[in-house]
Amino acid sequence: MPQIAYLECVRCHAQISAEKPQTVHAGCPVQPPGSLYVRYDLTTLEGTNPDEVIASTAGAPWRGMWRYSAVLPDVKPVTLGEGWTPMLHSKRLTNAYLKEEGTNPTGTFKARGLSLAVSMAKQYGLRKLAVPSAGNAAGALAAYAAAADIEAHIFMPRDVPFANYVEAIAYGAKVTLVDGLISDCARIVAERREEEGWFDISTLKEPFRVEGKKTMGYELVEQLGWEYPEAVFYPTGGGVGLIGMWKAFEEMEQLGWVKPGKRPRMIAVQAAGCAPVTRAYEQNDNASQMWQNAATFASGLRVPKPYGDHIILDILRASDGIALSVSDEDILNSILDWAKYEGIFLSPEGASVTAAYDQLIANGVLSPEDKVVLFNTGSGLKYTDVTSNAMGLVRP
Amino acid sequence: MPQIAYLECVRCHAQISAEKPQTVHAGCPVQPPGSLYVRYDLTTLEGTNPDEVIASTAGAPWRGMWRYSAVLPDVKPVTLGEGWTPMLHSKRLTNAYLKEEGTNPTGTFKARGLSLAVSMAKQYGLRKLAVPSAGNAAGALAAYAAAADIEAHIFMPRDVPFANYVEAIAYGAKVTLVDGLISDCARIVAERREEEGWFDISTLKEPFRVEGKKTMGYELVEQLGWEYPEAVFYPTGGGVGLIGMWKAFEEMEQLGWVKPGKRPRMIAVQAAGCAPVTRAYEQNDNASQMWQNAATFASGLRVPKPYGDHIILDILRASDGIALSVSDEDILNSILDWAKYEGIFLSPEGASVTAAYDQLIANGVLSPEDKVVLFNTGSGLKYTDVTSNAMGLVRP
Ligand SMILES: [Zn+2]
Ligand SMILES: [Zn+2]
Repeated sequence: MPQIAYLECVRCHAQISAEKPQTVHAGCPVQPPGSLYVRYDLTTLEGTNPDEVIASTAGAPWRGMWRYSAVLPDVKPVTLGEGWTPMLHSKRLTNAYLKEEGTNPTGTFKARGLSLAVSMAKQYGLRKLAVPSAGNAAGALAAYAAAADIEAHIFMPRDVPFANYVEAIAYGAKVTLVDGLISDCARIVAERREEEGWFDISTLKEPFRVEGKKTMGYELVEQLGWEYPEAVFYPTGGGVGLIGMWKAFEEMEQLGWVKPGKRPRMIAVQAAGCAPVTRAYEQNDNASQMWQNAATFASGLRVPKPYGDHIILDILRASDGIALSVSDEDILNSILDWAKYEGIFLSPEGASVTAAYDQLIANGVLSPEDKVVLFNTGSGLKYTDVTSNAMGLVRP
Repeated sequence: MPQIAYLECVRCHAQISAEKPQTVHAGCPVQPPGSLYVRYDLTTLEGTNPDEVIASTAGAPWRGMWRYSAVLPDVKPVTLGEGWTPMLHSKRLTNAYLKEEGTNPTGTFKARGLSLAVSMAKQYGLRKLAVPSAGNAAGALAAYAAAADIEAHIFMPRDVPFANYVEAIAYGAKVTLVDGLISDCARIVAERREEEGWFDISTLKEPFRVEGKKTMGYELVEQLGWEYPEAVFYPTGGGVGLIGMWKAFEEMEQLGWVKPGKRPRMIAVQAAGCAPVTRAYEQNDNASQMWQNAATFASGLRVPKPYGDHIILDILRASDGIALSVSDEDILNSILDWAKYEGIFLSPEGASVTAAYDQLIANGVLSPEDKVVLFNTGSGLKYTDVTSNAMGLVRP
């Protein structure tokens, strides 16, 4: 595992020491202050064979996302078996692959970021972590905090899927249900963290959640034989998975781990009832505006203004990508379509992506010949209450 | 992938051809008729290095249970990414490892058996599969049948965890909820299968579900460095996982894939409210008696008389194993204990095993020095309704 060389502000490129825990770039000349990326000196890895590097990574955790320890911070992992999720080949769509993140601990991709962020928090000696969450980050923080013997303070909307609430309570987290959205939860955390002594472990407000999520980028490329697909579809609430993958692509190119070729087009998918990034993309803006009255049963997409909106929009443009949104009806239909004809029970967020894929094939933006990776960010089993409700299915 | 040499009756050792689909041994002199085991000519694999055999297994599915294709039937896999689940090291119990089967597709170990059984059913050209289920086999059959374009007819108790019902419906299965237990469901399937043209895909009533589950035995040994642990704890409803693992141990010894040593003590764990195997074990019987008024919130353990009871009891005795049962209260306490202190949200069945481990350490039957593998057969996320109910937690 490499030493962290420094943390780099994504806005002004200032270099910050990682010796103490950092949030965003405190003295950033840009507003809001830039998020911090972890930077290493990876020159000794340049030109290596990634399969050999991974095979020589010691210890059982290499079987999950810690197989990429060579490009992760030098830390003792707090691990619950996260990562190395299946890449499923669609039965019907010849060139579509589904990255099944629902097999992660706590049933979602959030496990990757919080495994690393909580590992670092433990190493830094932090004792109290707080997070605003649309639901799934709450469960993941609660689990990893329990594994690390650290307090978790969680703020989430009162109407989250029930599973998010039950697991957070079971893990022993301090849970506050808020009459509002994740943006309201974030405000409460920001107001109270100083007097409570909480470290705010919100995505992009500390450097390590995005760093953990970058493993999705390494994984999808490795699982395709160290080659890029033509496009990557990502359900975009906070959008940090998309941001993390883009960082992975940069690193892999530096190392020579990916076969030379065009980077994938990054496709950000949102729900029609909460689509701030899509609107900004369509209006050619550099940042999003707060979405009013956000509403969708894809709870993970109910993020009215993601903190990393400007990074997401940059990536979409740099990659010849797209932002688009789909209706809740399309999401539900895609859940049922994939369940019935592929045997895969998607999360609503995952189904936003499969619905978006169908749209972009239908309107000719993508060809069925294009190899694509579709991210199912969570297990459908976490959403049985909201999904059955949308299906009109009642407890018999 | 090897050709099937023949199917062997577990009771009378008759050899049956696998050319056509088989159920149990039709002309068996023993009653009830014996289940059939898949047998291969594995002599060419004897003395091979298992790591090399696995590494040379082609194709993406090797990342899951199909990495063991060398010891599975020659069939085109119907796969959803099952197997190769994490082996987690307990944070507090130095020599306890948790085999986390909740990361399988449909959230339980049932995926392994049904992936193989449905693959074979498709190869045989079967069009209609039927199953009685305590809940989790239903979801898994529904998913794999959907992936294989085969009809699934499912019979399960009306009070199964809601997730079992929702997923089966979403996958497009024909679901019948029965006012009764899995034994009542089995009777209905047996009565109707002939006129309906259903193939009964109940465990141990066809050869391939147990064959798929045997991969758990290969995996646990591989993940411990091709060595046996001192004991394996398995939550025992139908008990087919335990039976499958024992078959794997036999095969691995023939192949020389496991370092010479004593086979693990097999520990069958049941719920106090439905403990037919424990009772038979304690009374030194060769088979169990139907358990009356079976009741436990560990729905997967609500099997009043497993078809393979005699095989399970044989294995317990051959391995110096034990059957024991734990109360629902102990199960709930162990769920909360593992969630709060390990960050792992167990299924009630999995928590029966962790509770049983605590008992056997407390009473000195096992030493904390003994390396053990504890099976969490399903994700806690599949049980949020029953678990929250047991916790007294209501939807806020
Ligand atoms: Zn800055
Ligand atoms: Zn026989």
